Amino acid sequence: MRFMAFAQHGRRGLAVASADKSYKGLFEDEAGYPGPLERIIAQGGVASAARALANGVDIDPDAVDCLPPLVPGKIICVGLNYLDHAAENAMKVPDFPTLFARFHSGLVGHGAALVRPPESDKFDYEGELVAVIGKGGRRIDKANALDHVAGYSIFNDGSIRDFQLRTPQWTMGKNFDGTGPFGPVFVTADELPPGAKGLHIETRLNGEIVQSASTDDLIFDVASLVSLISIGITLAPGDIIVTGTPSGVGAARKPPLFMKAGDVCEVEIEKIGTLRNPVEDDVGSAQASAAE
Amino acid sequence: MRFMAFAQHGRRGLAVASADKSYKGLFEDEAGYPGPLERIIAQGGVASAARALANGVDIDPDAVDCLPPLVPGKIICVGLNYLDHAAENAMKVPDFPTLFARFHSGLVGHGAALVRPPESDKFDYEGELVAVIGKGGRRIDKANALDHVAGYSIFNDGSIRDFQLRTPQWTMGKNFDGTGPFGPVFVTADELPPGAKGLHIETRLNGEIVQSASTDDLIFDVASLVSLISIGITLAPGDIIVTGTPSGVGAARKPPLFMKAGDVCEVEIEKIGTLRNPVEDDVGSAQASAAE
Repeated sequence: MRFMAFAQHGRRGLAVASADKSYKGLFEDEAGYPGPLERIIAQGGVASAARALANGVDIDPDAVDCLPPLVPGKIICVGLNYLDHAAENAMKVPDFPTLFARFHSGLVGHGAALVRPPESDKFDYEGELVAVIGKGGRRIDKANALDHVAGYSIFNDGSIRDFQLRTPQWTMGKNFDGTGPFGPVFVTADELPPGAKGLHIETRLNGEIVQSASTDDLIFDVASLVSLISIGITLAPGDIIVTGTPSGVGAARKPPLFMKAGDVCEVEIEKIGTLRNPVEDDVGSAQASAAE
Repeated sequence: MRFMAFAQHGRRGLAVASADKSYKGLFEDEAGYPGPLERIIAQGGVASAARALANGVDIDPDAVDCLPPLVPGKIICVGLNYLDHAAENAMKVPDFPTLFARFHSGLVGHGAALVRPPESDKFDYEGELVAVIGKGGRRIDKANALDHVAGYSIFNDGSIRDFQLRTPQWTMGKNFDGTGPFGPVFVTADELPPGAKGLHIETRLNGEIVQSASTDDLIFDVASLVSLISIGITLAPGDIIVTGTPSGVGAARKPPLFMKAGDVCEVEIEKIGTLRNPVEDDVGSAQASAAE
């Protein structure tokens, strides 16, 4: 099952893909609307929600605004999780996942602007596989960790590199508003290989391939991440793990390649979809201050 | 005004301190209950909530379970924000705040257990001042940044040092369940000096003073933090900034001093209160797994 959250004329809704890949859905104020995806996942009602939505109206993905497929609980990001990306950053191969957090305030949907702030010209892309927790737990055994994963999606972990590297912790450069595209869809785990292994992941900037790898190349695979993170942190339904990016990021290129207004960045993962976002300059700073 | 969130016999409530320092409050299912503090702050209704609660029943802080005073939006933590603490870690003085995040899953209230996991014996304390955002914004000028702060509280940024330092990012060691005491109360900004400056902050382990400083010693003061963080990140009402810890942490002592079961850790900030938590060993691991 493939779910897409959307908004149209101020109304939110949720849609499910049919066998012919068209979408059927319901708006939040319509009878039978099964609720936002994070609640559906927490209640274990994914299959019944899909049935309810399949009785809805036709939804044209190009005629609505895609939203992040769900509002995550925790957004747990993994750094340095592909060997060749660790190498391009001259970082040693980690013996434990390197974790950082993103806040909800930075999330945008498929099709929305990746926002380059005026404070930096070092705006970089990072295509990543997302694992969505379906069943919570603590100290989850790796052997059954995938039972805790409801499905998968795509993230572009947009990074303001100078702010990211200005201090020992990356948080500031990983959390600018408008830098975290998430979507376009949530795909249930049963539609993909176990652990979403063996999937081609590719990032394109203006059509040019800038990252190309396989999810097999993850140093810590999805089952390992679920198990290792939950040593200390209780995972809950709707938490997401953003699993890390392969090599090819703009900051590691010679010369560096950063995103600028007018660019289009796409992250495609085989069997999941393509997350596409145009890059725009932030022109909202005066308004944002005035509107406080 | 001083607010305390609590639970008793499965009912949550909110209380306000009277002039004689006793507490009056309402349970969530009682008429006139003004809502949880995070909603009150977002709606700008702090004064009217205090009036409503003052008409409630007597609440004995020792007879109820204190909860974190509010459920924060973002939990934005600052590292290395006291000169002497940066020095004891052999870190250079930062030219921008070093930020990391905590997740809600690690929070506990005043009086609840600080939980030492069996995976580590390097459980450290960090007493810190908390600033609670009252009015959101982006690119907030330092000159009016304090207008965006609703009030203050106390945090013990409990850290599992070996996990914190095992990878380049501190997130894992900063987010173990049961390691983030927050409270005991939320004190509105008007009760304290501007920016909560000049307040004595002290951490005690089993009564012995292990950290002692003034909030004047913050490298980046509250106004600077609000302004600098909001360069990139929209702050929202109910977000909290955990402003960093002074020197004296256990890991930097010779010999090191870590918390163990039976210890009691207190963080006291002048004019705010004392956040006191007993340390217990985590004995819940098998149960947690079985209860998934």
